[in-house]
Amino acid sequence: MPNTAAPRIHLGPGHQTTLADGIARGGGVLASLADAEAVVWAQGPDTFPERLPDTVRWVQLPSAGIEPWLAAGLVDDRRTWTSAAGAYAGNVAEHAVLLLLAGVRGLTEQVRAVSWRKAEFDPRVGTLQGATVAIVGCGGIGRAMIPLLTAFGAEVLAVTRSGTPVPGAAETLPATRTDEVWSRADHFVIAAPATAETAQLVDADTLARMKPTAWVVNIARGTLIDTGALVDALRDHTIGGAALDVTDPEPLPTGHPLWTLPNALITPHIANPATGLPRTLAEHVAANVERFAAGQPLLAVIDPVRGY
Amino acid sequence: MPNTAAPRIHLGPGHQTTLADGIARGGGVLASLADAEAVVWAQGPDTFPERLPDTVRWVQLPSAGIEPWLAAGLVDDRRTWTSAAGAYAGNVAEHAVLLLLAGVRGLTEQVRAVSWRKAEFDPRVGTLQGATVAIVGCGGIGRAMIPLLTAFGAEVLAVTRSGTPVPGAAETLPATRTDEVWSRADHFVIAAPATAETAQLVDADTLARMKPTAWVVNIARGTLIDTGALVDALRDHTIGGAALDVTDPEPLPTGHPLWTLPNALITPHIANPATGLPRTLAEHVAANVERFAAGQPLLAVIDPVRGY
Repeated sequence: MPNTAAPRIHLGPGHQTTLADGIARGGGVLASLADAEAVVWAQGPDTFPERLPDTVRWVQLPSAGIEPWLAAGLVDDRRTWTSAAGAYAGNVAEHAVLLLLAGVRGLTEQVRAVSWRKAEFDPRVGTLQGATVAIVGCGGIGRAMIPLLTAFGAEVLAVTRSGTPVPGAAETLPATRTDEVWSRADHFVIAAPATAETAQLVDADTLARMKPTAWVVNIARGTLIDTGALVDALRDHTIGGAALDVTDPEPLPTGHPLWTLPNALITPHIANPATGLPRTLAEHVAANVERFAAGQPLLAVIDPVRGY
Repeated sequence: MPNTAAPRIHLGPGHQTTLADGIARGGGVLASLADAEAVVWAQGPDTFPERLPDTVRWVQLPSAGIEPWLAAGLVDDRRTWTSAAGAYAGNVAEHAVLLLLAGVRGLTEQVRAVSWRKAEFDPRVGTLQGATVAIVGCGGIGRAMIPLLTAFGAEVLAVTRSGTPVPGAAETLPATRTDEVWSRADHFVIAAPATAETAQLVDADTLARMKPTAWVVNIARGTLIDTGALVDALRDHTIGGAALDVTDPEPLPTGHPLWTLPNALITPHIANPATGLPRTLAEHVAANVERFAAGQPLLAVIDPVRGY
């Protein structure tokens, strides 16, 4: 007789050790599709089964963005579907804090130096202690940053669509008041989704309102910053600098000034490295299998009407 | 009549706005030496008053190390003397965490790149999540690092002289068991004082026991690492890399291989930047003036017998 407490999970396509371990950690057992209560899917929609047995009550998808799944018409209302939304937030938050710290403490020039330039670099070393950091678009990644930034003694000024207070932030503003943050905060982390409203959110006008020591970190989408205006601000030293994991255009072309400006730091869209995905996804799967077994609400349930 | 609740503090030599602000924040008022209950001194012993009035019950010195003051015979037993020990720990801890994060996430090569090398860099991005970080010599700086590292999801393995459990560390080992950490921890922060016992603590033998992904951070003294053995390990990729704020020799000579090895990151002894000293010292002074006014034990009281 099967152990009724251990949910039977179909893992596909094929076997992935890291995900299988995650299912086991969550208390699940691997099963064939015909015998499964749930499906954990490790790839895109192309190879997804055309028809799921009615016994499958839950499907875990592998990505945070689920547009291709919705477009393929696969997400039905006969079972619960979950995405990987939020699973990767911790890793991106870690990278964003690294970029901010590296900027504020002048690491870019230090790493590029090939001689001991202490007298030159020492006066440029800043600190996050006592700094106000605005997180513009404070969703899952921003929320994961707050305990990190506050551990360093920084205060967080959160901007969200609704303005509902974000736990741990010193203050939360609704998106309609975004304009206020540029002159108020010491540094900025851009973490908003790319929409028509957020395109070139950081432009010549907003850059002009920032403090001359302000660092701008972008871990969202390159299009949220007007690259030309940013290069001007960096060349004129009207802000402290910019640390960008995403760029516009992306990939950033060889020879672009952002590669060599002393106050610019580029990482090639690796805040959420592909190599980390299986492990991170496996942790998310383990948590959801455990919740499924206990009959608790699952993480990152998809609402097909809202589209995420 | 003077406000008996506000301690009268002599600030010397001369007036320093940042320190005067710190005294005011702590609830003190500035006074002439003849009228003072306490002295806050902003420079070295050369210009210190030859004789202090008996009414001076406390002297705050500006540095963490007080060897010159002891050598000059100024530290007497007629009053309390305090140093700035611990005041700078937060700033050094911030830098040490930055160096470790930069190493683990591959930032060194990313910052030096002048083209979009995503496919090459992506697989080398690590994380502090779930990592075990050994802090070898877990004093004030190490203790200030623990809440930072644990916020990132790392566990701390502390090594102290006594082995008395360090709050927040997953485990504390006495210095006599230091040998155990090299194969156990994922990464290492060297934060021990430079003594005969700690000279070349990290040598060819200890490097050989580290994991191939291990990063070594040194924010203590360059002599704690055998530089030649470290260069060999970095060239052979037997460890992940090294991020050093202190070097041996120091300053590191131009042309030294550590300047250009892809897995080495040098910052020129700026973890505790000179420019940050007045502000950091002012915070320490404010805290001590407040304690003095309240009759509470002061921070960093000097024991002339122990010499610190």
